[in-house]
Amino acid sequence: MKETLYGIILAGGVGSRFWPLSRVTSPKQLLKIAGDESLLKTTIKRLSPLIPQRRISIVTNSAQAEIIRLHLYDAGHPSEGWVGGRGVELVVEPFGRNTAPAIGLAALKLLQKDPDCVMAVLPSDHLIARGETFRRTLRAAAAAAREGYLVTFGVIPTRPETGYGYIKTGGAIKTLNNIKVKKVERFVEKPELKKAKRYLKEGGYYWNSGIFVWKAGKILDEIRLFLPSLYKNLLSIQRGAAIEEAYEKMESISIDHGVLEKTEDIAVIEADFPWSDMGSLNSLKEVFSPDRDGNIMKGRVVDIGSKRSFIIGSDRVVATIGLKDMILVDTPDATLVCPRDRTQEVKEVVDVLKKRGYAEHESHITVERPWGAYTVLEAGDHYKIKKVMVLPGRRLSLQMHRKRSEHWVVISGAARVERDGKVFMVKENESTFIPKGAKHRLGNPSRKKPLELIEVQNGSYVGEDDIVRFKDDYERG
Amino acid sequence: MKETLYGIILAGGVGSRFWPLSRVTSPKQLLKIAGDESLLKTTIKRLSPLIPQRRISIVTNSAQAEIIRLHLYDAGHPSEGWVGGRGVELVVEPFGRNTAPAIGLAALKLLQKDPDCVMAVLPSDHLIARGETFRRTLRAAAAAAREGYLVTFGVIPTRPETGYGYIKTGGAIKTLNNIKVKKVERFVEKPELKKAKRYLKEGGYYWNSGIFVWKAGKILDEIRLFLPSLYKNLLSIQRGAAIEEAYEKMESISIDHGVLEKTEDIAVIEADFPWSDMGSLNSLKEVFSPDRDGNIMKGRVVDIGSKRSFIIGSDRVVATIGLKDMILVDTPDATLVCPRDRTQEVKEVVDVLKKRGYAEHESHITVERPWGAYTVLEAGDHYKIKKVMVLPGRRLSLQMHRKRSEHWVVISGAARVERDGKVFMVKENESTFIPKGAKHRLGNPSRKKPLELIEVQNGSYVGEDDIVRFKDDYERG
Repeated sequence: MKETLYGIILAGGVGSRFWPLSRVTSPKQLLKIAGDESLLKTTIKRLSPLIPQRRISIVTNSAQAEIIRLHLYDAGHPSEGWVGGRGVELVVEPFGRNTAPAIGLAALKLLQKDPDCVMAVLPSDHLIARGETFRRTLRAAAAAAREGYLVTFGVIPTRPETGYGYIKTGGAIKTLNNIKVKKVERFVEKPELKKAKRYLKEGGYYWNSGIFVWKAGKILDEIRLFLPSLYKNLLSIQRGAAIEEAYEKMESISIDHGVLEKTEDIAVIEADFPWSDMGSLNSLKEVFSPDRDGNIMKGRVVDIGSKRSFIIGSDRVVATIGLKDMILVDTPDATLVCPRDRTQEVKEVVDVLKKRGYAEHESHITVERPWGAYTVLEAGDHYKIKKVMVLPGRRLSLQMHRKRSEHWVVISGAARVERDGKVFMVKENESTFIPKGAKHRLGNPSRKKPLELIEVQNGSYVGEDDIVRFKDDYERG
Repeated sequence: MKETLYGIILAGGVGSRFWPLSRVTSPKQLLKIAGDESLLKTTIKRLSPLIPQRRISIVTNSAQAEIIRLHLYDAGHPSEGWVGGRGVELVVEPFGRNTAPAIGLAALKLLQKDPDCVMAVLPSDHLIARGETFRRTLRAAAAAAREGYLVTFGVIPTRPETGYGYIKTGGAIKTLNNIKVKKVERFVEKPELKKAKRYLKEGGYYWNSGIFVWKAGKILDEIRLFLPSLYKNLLSIQRGAAIEEAYEKMESISIDHGVLEKTEDIAVIEADFPWSDMGSLNSLKEVFSPDRDGNIMKGRVVDIGSKRSFIIGSDRVVATIGLKDMILVDTPDATLVCPRDRTQEVKEVVDVLKKRGYAEHESHITVERPWGAYTVLEAGDHYKIKKVMVLPGRRLSLQMHRKRSEHWVVISGAARVERDGKVFMVKENESTFIPKGAKHRLGNPSRKKPLELIEVQNGSYVGEDDIVRFKDDYERG
């Protein structure tokens, strides 16, 4: 019998180079950059024909676990074939320590379920086209992994890209289903353009995709060999040590540096599908096709004569004149402008935002919830105005606020309101009042029509954390 | 007895090169670019010690007249010495036809009041510092005007500016209160940098400020001589012809091209005060002092390494990396980015906005009213959410809407509400409902505290023009 294939999706980062699109509470993997669904959901769905959701785990950290859990509930977005993320397991690190600890932790857990299993390790925030080719490659990689190889996906380069690491290959090991498995000669850091051009011309170089396939037992053997301290700490967790303490002791190291660059048993499998690591906003060129001036323009953009520039707007008007090789990303509460070759520095912008205590690094004004979404229209010291949308058939938790009251005015649809045990309907153009301390619940009983209402909060404190939940459809605390 | 001095302020333009700061309903002269008050109010107050408000007229067109009239009511902004614009007369053209018709029309009206009067013609949207020097120059110019000269203000250049027209002077005519009055040799269009440098070095060149002083009778004589068709049309208005028809027949021409470049009786008076025509967003450098990197940064800006760039933000976060010689202007609903040497093209952006029917060329989301201000937080087909602020002691009109109802939730202060004859108070954290068709009035009875409320409009139509006014403190129709 074949060893079972499991999927391990790494989803611990924020992707702050994607700010202002990404936020702490909207990490890059949850963004709908490349279509109607998030990169994470797309990653899961890409695996699904080969690996069912019950054999997929997401490794994340405690700061993101709840955000990801709620995201996996289908929040009403077009999602053919999506079964609500149920069955997908979350493996929660107390905090991120790069890929080696994350992969080690996941491997240990898998071994307990299935001692012979093969695991595919996948970033949650990459762009991959041609899912069928991807899965064919994955199947071949799994076959090689069963023979004891640590298999890394090497994407066939299509241009002299300076934004990726490269893998220099040695001779062919074998061919599986017309897909080549090759020896790895060495890993190469992001090259300069001249070198990248040479690699492309010479051949024998692949882009290092960060996708790996191996037996869970094999990678743990290698970690024991090359990262003995990490191995010890991982084992202590399995034996019941507090995970926080074990993680405090771990060094932060990638599986590439820690294991793959040292092991003998490494192999690279030729992956022939369009791929991007979405490493910075400049990667938006992988998602959208530039026009004949090399521009990408989305949203309500008015441009005069820009060249090779990406203007990503939203509902606001963005006007540009004569930009050259620039990126402009506009969101409802923040705008970024920078040269395309300096998108790496966006991370530093986010650091400044954090230091200054600007909320714009933390969250978007529109926040998705499993029951729908809300948008903060305006906020002051003692009041907050929200537009609240509740999906058909969904409801918020039964809750109470200690420090604020709420006025609700329905602008579309009808609301089922529970307030201190009394249940009543509030229809379009009607309003109701939820006093401070009242136990209340808001729901949309319609089967088809979303409910939209304006909430005016008043009180001495209007933070999101002033909430006591009594019952919740989404198991929130 | 001395001839009386009158002020004629030209305020007919939108100043669309200042978009997104300027809008059709917030023309440049009404912007508070250079302080707490609008350029127009500052222009009036600069004249006041010399020309009382009852001798000041503003020439504008019918599209802007009501906006300017309401603006002249003090809308609660710090405004020492401002007497609410009362006494200032509006001279309303049906539409703009450049400066010659505007000045001719104003001169005709003045002649009827005072046949010997001297008129000072002033743009409403320029920046002038050192008001005392300005008024001293104006007094001297008036003296020269009494002797029959058409006097134009020539500002002493302080740098080789390529954004202004120049006046080449001839010999001195005389000196009045230490201020030189000189002959004009010729008018020079905006020069290239090389020429501008030469002008500065050679001396004898002034910046053409567009400020003029002359007898009303004299300028009409000159118009009769050099623009006979315009003169005929102006006269027909005085004799009772419809002003629209007369204006239809007029050619659009500036007083500079039409008269000043042709007449013999022109003189230039040396004006030694800091001045800017605020011709484009690049003129913001006249208002704010650049830092040591040459940058101007206002608002919540996070910048990494930009040079010689102007980043004018507001409440939103604007992040910039490595901009060079760029301008970024951010407003709540629109952002503009362009090189500093292409700010002239902002006008074209506005043309595109207009063509596409984007409301962002028309008005800001915050609209000032004589009773306070409102901000549109969100709008849909059948609803609109506004934050409304009513100044202490002010009230809106007694009004009625045919197609919408309104929910009001008070978030700060207290409201005096009149609804179908009934009067009641609505306090902080209370709400009330104004049904469709109800005659209602909102006021702030407090002497100190502004009233703030959230208005949720619901209805088949939520346009601003669905309003029937019964009574109004500000004489609106």
